[in-house]
Amino acid sequence: MQQITIIGCGLIGSSIARSIRLNQLAETIVCADMSEQVCKQAESLQLADWVTTDLGKAVAEADLCIVAVPVGATADVLKQIAKFLKPGSIVSDVGSVKSSVAKAFLESLPEGVHGVPAHPIAGTENSGPAAGFAELFHGRWCILTPNKSTDPTAVESVADFWKSCGSKVEIMTPQHHDLVLGITSHLPHLIAFTIVGTANELEEEMRSEVIKYSAGGFRDFTRIAASNPVMWRDIFLNNREAVLEVLQRFGEDLTALQKAIRKGDGDVLLDVFSETRLIRQAIIDSGQAE
Amino acid sequence: MQQITIIGCGLIGSSIARSIRLNQLAETIVCADMSEQVCKQAESLQLADWVTTDLGKAVAEADLCIVAVPVGATADVLKQIAKFLKPGSIVSDVGSVKSSVAKAFLESLPEGVHGVPAHPIAGTENSGPAAGFAELFHGRWCILTPNKSTDPTAVESVADFWKSCGSKVEIMTPQHHDLVLGITSHLPHLIAFTIVGTANELEEEMRSEVIKYSAGGFRDFTRIAASNPVMWRDIFLNNREAVLEVLQRFGEDLTALQKAIRKGDGDVLLDVFSETRLIRQAIIDSGQAE
Repeated sequence: MQQITIIGCGLIGSSIARSIRLNQLAETIVCADMSEQVCKQAESLQLADWVTTDLGKAVAEADLCIVAVPVGATADVLKQIAKFLKPGSIVSDVGSVKSSVAKAFLESLPEGVHGVPAHPIAGTENSGPAAGFAELFHGRWCILTPNKSTDPTAVESVADFWKSCGSKVEIMTPQHHDLVLGITSHLPHLIAFTIVGTANELEEEMRSEVIKYSAGGFRDFTRIAASNPVMWRDIFLNNREAVLEVLQRFGEDLTALQKAIRKGDGDVLLDVFSETRLIRQAIIDSGQAE
Repeated sequence: MQQITIIGCGLIGSSIARSIRLNQLAETIVCADMSEQVCKQAESLQLADWVTTDLGKAVAEADLCIVAVPVGATADVLKQIAKFLKPGSIVSDVGSVKSSVAKAFLESLPEGVHGVPAHPIAGTENSGPAAGFAELFHGRWCILTPNKSTDPTAVESVADFWKSCGSKVEIMTPQHHDLVLGITSHLPHLIAFTIVGTANELEEEMRSEVIKYSAGGFRDFTRIAASNPVMWRDIFLNNREAVLEVLQRFGEDLTALQKAIRKGDGDVLLDVFSETRLIRQAIIDSGQAE
């Protein structure tokens, strides 16, 4: 491709820019961000050939434009750039929710521009342009959620792009994506935010002890609960139904274990704890953990 | 010390044996385990000078005896070894619950033998003699819970032992230990077991997708939920009250977030998610995470 433009230069956007350069996927890389401070950081990190706060200018010559902003801001960005996009160009995104984004793509993009929503399942708890790295997507899945009328060549292009970044690509409906991610990502994050929030509410002395003795398990939750707050607020607001559904199942299971503890029923506990060990092994066998 | 005996040769017991050897903390290391298979493994790993299934023989000449079995088995082991212990010797343990263990120490140990309950806050999700390593306790806290009548010299000896293994030592009451660990360790594990159990209940097709796309957060929970099932059953049964209390607080906080999601109240979510980030930073600053 001649030019790829990335809008939003945080952890994911800056990792994409680095991966494009490393893998030589475009002649020109453009980074755009509405924050001047972020643009300055992106410039000093030399993430792109040029950096701008002017979204229209950024996308005008782009063959592929990737919107990498919090899910709640995607529809606005699409509206802002719509009239500047060139015919035949492709627009994609990286959002962790796909139903609401797919709707925004359909409503905002002009005729002749191809919208291919995407979600690379990769990330760290760190945020901002300095946190990104080119290898973030290596061996990770990227899910595309085109609709039936999306140009297959455009879908192929986006799939090839992610494969070149080291990802494995899968295609599914936005609704199915949102349910699967509700379980694998959104629920775990909500739980982690909650448990760390519960600790945060403790009286001062107890809180400092929780920090001191965090190696017993709590520490791992704080890593997840350190993720970008705005990004996660938007995810929960935009995947409300799926999150509330899996949350209800979780609540029922937690109540059952709570009851087993109250009654001193060790057999129930042992059964559940033995099963969960097998899932870990399946994830290791699938190459998604070590 | 002349002889240190470790009863129970799993992850923790075998790590202690390795650390004693590495740091030359005893002339003779003895490992005992009621499982012949585990004893054979311990022998082939050369963890000790000698290995036996005979607990009485194992402790008869020990200056320090460390019981490293699941919390639910500790009282039984103490009863079994009581009459073989030599006067002036010290008995300790490594259990994640201390109130019930401290009671068992008081009830079981004969006059002239010093009981010093201990809990090294360290571990991995792996089990068994092959999973241990000498550096497991480096930089981690070890909490001792002696009572008012415990010989201060014996407490000092156990503290010195753990410092020699690379740990930092703190002393508190068993009750306070159980509340702090209820929050930092037992609740996080219960939540992780639950969420992985919830995924395990899904229909087959969805379950394979959860494994495939686990990198979005779920994966981290499966690591914790892969911990030793018997050990964790015993922890929950022996720290029932503290676990149920913190579980109630957690439940209230989860309900509040659930309500915020249902109502679409982004401000509440953003507030909680921003606060939790600060706790992560405090843990990094304290040297308990990177």
